[in-house]
Formats: sequence, C-alpha cells, structure tokens
Amino acid sequence: MAEMIVTPWEVKGEIDYDKLLLEFGLKRIDEKLKKRLQKKLGDNIFLRRGIFFAHRDLDWLLDEYDKKNYFYLYTGRGPSGHTHLGHLLPWIFTKELQDAYNTKLVFQLTDDEKFLFSSTLSVGDVEKFTNENILDIIAVGFDPKKTEIYTDMRNAKDFYPQAVRVAKHITFSTAKAVFGFENDSNIGKIFFTSMQAVPAFIESVNKGKNVPCLIPHAIDQDPHFRVTRDILPKLGYYKPSSIQCKFIPGLGKDGKMSSSEPETCIFTIDTSKDIERKIKKAFTGGRESLEEQKKLGGNPDICPIYQYFYNLFEEDDEKLEDRFRRCKNGKLMCGECKQDLIPRVQKFMKEHQERREKAKKLVSKFLVK
Amino acid sequence: MAEMIVTPWEVKGEIDYDKLLLEFGLKRIDEKLKKRLQKKLGDNIFLRRGIFFAHRDLDWLLDEYDKKNYFYLYTGRGPSGHTHLGHLLPWIFTKELQDAYNTKLVFQLTDDEKFLFSSTLSVGDVEKFTNENILDIIAVGFDPKKTEIYTDMRNAKDFYPQAVRVAKHITFSTAKAVFGFENDSNIGKIFFTSMQAVPAFIESVNKGKNVPCLIPHAIDQDPHFRVTRDILPKLGYYKPSSIQCKFIPGLGKDGKMSSSEPETCIFTIDTSKDIERKIKKAFTGGRESLEEQKKLGGNPDICPIYQYFYNLFEEDDEKLEDRFRRCKNGKLMCGECKQDLIPRVQKFMKEHQERREKAKKLVSKFLVK
Repeated sequence: MAEMIVTPWEVKGEIDYDKLLLEFGLKRIDEKLKKRLQKKLGDNIFLRRGIFFAHRDLDWLLDEYDKKNYFYLYTGRGPSGHTHLGHLLPWIFTKELQDAYNTKLVFQLTDDEKFLFSSTLSVGDVEKFTNENILDIIAVGFDPKKTEIYTDMRNAKDFYPQAVRVAKHITFSTAKAVFGFENDSNIGKIFFTSMQAVPAFIESVNKGKNVPCLIPHAIDQDPHFRVTRDILPKLGYYKPSSIQCKFIPGLGKDGKMSSSEPETCIFTIDTSKDIERKIKKAFTGGRESLEEQKKLGGNPDICPIYQYFYNLFEEDDEKLEDRFRRCKNGKLMCGECKQDLIPRVQKFMKEHQERREKAKKLVSKFLVK
Repeated sequence: MAEMIVTPWEVKGEIDYDKLLLEFGLKRIDEKLKKRLQKKLGDNIFLRRGIFFAHRDLDWLLDEYDKKNYFYLYTGRGPSGHTHLGHLLPWIFTKELQDAYNTKLVFQLTDDEKFLFSSTLSVGDVEKFTNENILDIIAVGFDPKKTEIYTDMRNAKDFYPQAVRVAKHITFSTAKAVFGFENDSNIGKIFFTSMQAVPAFIESVNKGKNVPCLIPHAIDQDPHFRVTRDILPKLGYYKPSSIQCKFIPGLGKDGKMSSSEPETCIFTIDTSKDIERKIKKAFTGGRESLEEQKKLGGNPDICPIYQYFYNLFEEDDEKLEDRFRRCKNGKLMCGECKQDLIPRVQKFMKEHQERREKAKKLVSKFLVK
C-alpha cells in the first residue's frame, strides 16, 4: 500500500480518512449534526453517503444561525490547470448550502499560490487557468447576486492589507511545522497562507461587524484553516467553521483525481469521446480474467468506477447497493459497469458545458472590482 | 565606542562608513564620477561634501543616459512616525536629481513594513503617519507631473502581483542571511523585501520595456537593494543602480537621527520653540567647561551641531571651514554656535511647513489610484 501523503499541495497513496481525522483534529459529522443539516439541505447524497464527513465548529455555526446570526460561505480553487470532476464535487455541495441557507459565498482563486508553488507555470499560464476556472465556478450555478469571486492577485487591493494583519501573527516556525517548509522554500510560499486566511474574515471587514463563516473544502486544505482559526480571534474575529469532504478518486490506481495525470481525470473541457476513452481505460476493482471475475467477484471498494456512481452518478441508494452486490457476486462485469457510467458522465458534462458557455456572459456579475 | 549596527531597521553606534562600504560591497563615488554628476547637478553640497558618497552601477546608468536610454528615480519612506530632518536630506537630493535629469520619480511608502516590524503601531497609526509623511514628500518640491507616490497597502493591486514574481526567487535562507531573520520572525517580515523590490522595475512593467532605475537612499537600506539586484535580471529587468548617503546625526550622542528618541530629532511639525529647545539641549563636541574649551578647543568631528552646518545649513565652504577652525582653536563656544544654527533651522522648517500646508491641496496629483 502506498504511503499516505495529504498536504495542500500533494495527495498520494491510499487515503485513511479515520487517521486523517485524528491527525488533523477534525470532528466526524455525527447523526445528530447530519440530521440538523438535512433539515435544510434535504436528502443530500454528499451527507447521506459520508462524502462530506468531518467538520470544525459546525454545531456552533448552526446555533448562531438559529439565533439569526447568519453565516456566509467561503470556498476556493487553486488555478493550476483545467477544472476536473474532483473540483466540482465540493462546489456542488457549496451551491446546495448556498441555496438551502440563502447565504453569501466568497469564492477565492489562489493565483499567487499556484504561481509560487509551481516550477513550470508562468504568471500568464495561471491567468489563463484562472479565467477558465471562473467559467466552471459560475457553471455550477451559484447565485450571482450572492456570490463574489476574488483572485488574490487581481484583488490584492482588498486582500494584501488584510493578509498582512494575519501574517504578523504567524512565525516561520509555525509555517514550517504546519506546511513542511524548508530553508530553501521561497518567501512567497511562506507568506501565502496569510492570503488564504483572508476570505475567512473579509465579510466581517466589509460589514464592519463579526459574521460567522463556513468553509466547505476537500480535506487536504485543512492545514491552512487550522492556522487561520488560531489567528482570527487575535484580530477580533470568529474562528471560521469548516466542513470537509473526501477526494473523488482518479481513474488510475490510488489517490485523488489529479490534473498532473490528465488521462486519469475527467476535465470539464473533455469531449464525450474523451470521457468514453478515459473511462474505458480506467483501473477497476475487477479480476484479471472474465472467468476469474465470474467465479470470485470484483472489488468495488477499490474501484474508481464504483466511486463515481457513489459520489455523483447514482443517487438511488438501492440501485447503488444492487450494483455493489452484483459486482461482488461476479454478476456485473467491468465492461458493462463502465458502459453504464459513460453516458451519465457524458450527460453531466454536456449540461455543465452548456452552462459553462452561458457563463461567459455572466463573468462580470461575479467578479469583485 | 558603541558597536556599529546598520540594518534597514536599526542603526546604532558610531558609523564607520569605510567599513560599511566594504561590508556592503558598494563603490565610493570617485572624482571622475562626481564631476560627471556635477555637470548636470551643478555645485551640489551633497556631492561636494561626500554626503552622497557611494553607489552601485552609477557609471553604467550615466552611460545609458548619454545614449538617451533615460532612467527614472525610486526612493521611499517607512511611515513609522513623523518626518524629521534626517529623512528630508536624501529627498532633497532626489529632487535635485529629478530637476537636473528631468526624470520621473516613483516614491514608495512601505506601510506594510512599518506595521509588520513594529510591536506597537496599529494599521491605523501607520495610515496616519503615511498621510502625514506624504505632505512632507510633496513639500520637498517634487514635480507633480513627474512624481508618483505609492503605498504598499493602498497600491497592493499594482504591487503584490509583482512582489510575488520577486518572492519566487528568494529563499528563506537568503532572507535570513541578509536581514538576520529567525524562526520566530513573522512571515510578513520575511516576505516584505519583495515589496521593496517592486518600484525598482515597476516603470519597466508599466512601459512594457526595460527602463534603467536609480535609487538614492540612506545606506542602511542597501541590503534590500542587494537582494533586488540579484533577482531583477532573473525576471528580465536591469539591475537598479543606486546612490547612498550617510546619516544626519541625531542631537544626542552617536547614531542617526531617530524618531524613537524625539528630543534628538527635529521633526517637520516642530515649532520654532521646539527647535530652539532641542538644539539648546543638544550634545556637542564641546568641553566640560568654558575655560577648558578656550584652552583645548572643541571637537567638531563628533559634534551634531557642526554636522548640521555641514549637511544642510552652511553652504559656503569657507565659512564652514572657518567655523571648524574657530571651534578647534577654542575661539567659538558651543552656545554661540548653537545660536547661529537655531534661526537657520527655524527658517528652513518654516519654509518647509508653508509648502507642507500647500501640499494638502496637491495630494491627489501625486497619488496613484
């Protein structure tokens, strides 16, 4: 089994979420909290299936909400490449939260980060991906009246002065301990977490009063928000609450979907043909031969195809369970299963791409000048 | 003799400029270079008396100028307090350069730095001093058509994205070696030198072609520009040239004029009465008693009062020499010498304050939106 590595910049190996929960000091979303969320969100598969599974201070946030001290949402994207399915999942959940709680959303694109942490991307490359990614964000369907998209570089006027306030409270030792920096790390990387902290209190700055903040995000980003939570009370703001999801796996073996391995990712710019090719080539939990699989059954637990149904493409629990069982029993072969998935992903992407096309005219409604 | 400490944030002890020149790797302005400058600047006391005494690549810059590849000027101010005489000196020289070479000037106020490096200043305090200092800058008489005043926080939109490009090439090791940072230094301090680098190439960014840059500054700021000079060629820009001045001493014993010891500084907001009081209380190179001084003579070499005449308040070399000689010979007593200085400083400040008052209406002409 490959060693698990989960940092904001690298996710590798088989992910042990129980271990991560303990290491990061997160709380599991228990039945009581899940029900409380479901009252507003309805029967949401991300909650029901434990895809969003962990949190910090979410109970406090909901208490405040009940007292009419309403929260806003903050999530983000590092524009280092094209958007893929793995990115969309937490954004879709964030949109559902926005709709259910009728909240404002601050969406941050960390263009500075992606330039500072990459050995290959130019400022121009990052700008290009920023513009591309913004279309995908808008295509998810966020409310233009309640959503503000910021990029660190373009909105530096609002962000840098606030980041400086955060930075004053973070020592190099802390940044080193949390993010693993070394003496040869560049000083932009070292400073960067201060910029990622800003959306967690920018609404309080703009409103001139404390506003609770909820950050839905993939679990690898938690180290940033651990630091943010330590600092914000020192500046007189609430600690942000957060809710964490698991990764949607790539189509290869192990690990999350990653743009650095393009054939294992389904991008929002992929054609139906690309989707078909990538899924057909995908790793599965199947056996070496059809005979063997019929005899021994497949292993859906390690199968990205099954994970796709689980995460996004089979909302019906009974049908999902049936698929699981038929795989295990050697009744469902990988080819058939892939054939079931392909048109669903194609349809999903086609609809996204139509909204993405329309998004081109909406960009200015979302950007903060 | 107090140990010499010269960093961008601390200047202490008796300054050995020859040693600094060697340590920092600066070149002395030789007779040939001085004459070359004087052709344009005329008989300037700052050059004649070696107050601006060191440089980097100034000969190259003047060669480019002769080839009609014209430079611009960059200087700055850390807004941590009220402006004092020590700050004005390099600004006055910068204005003379602007007039003589008919150049643009980029003036940077490092409000982020002063907040990040201070244990007492709030963002609001720094903002207040920024606004105050801007009036003094304008009062020096820079050409509003050829001068742009930036502050790091207010102009972060222009500055931060460029600073990120610089930061990518500076490691923590380098920042530590140059500036003496430790593991407990805050990450804003560590990043800061990237912001101070930006005005050295912002004109090239804005013009879309390489423009030579000359930075007149007090010698303590050289470590920043050493780093800047290492990085800019990696981004495709010229190394900035620079020209360094000595410090105008405080009215106490040793060291430069420092706002942290207000009674040893003459501020631009001081009244004539303040000026009189501070000069009367000043340390001098005089003896313990009048008799002794008449017998042994005074020591103008260690005397801030003499330094004031030398730096700003006695343009006539013969009269200055006469004052030096009469002090040495025990003919000129400290009381008389101070009485000579007081009205000159009062007049200088009164005129500055009149221009400072008028500057209030000119601010918007200098600020970059």
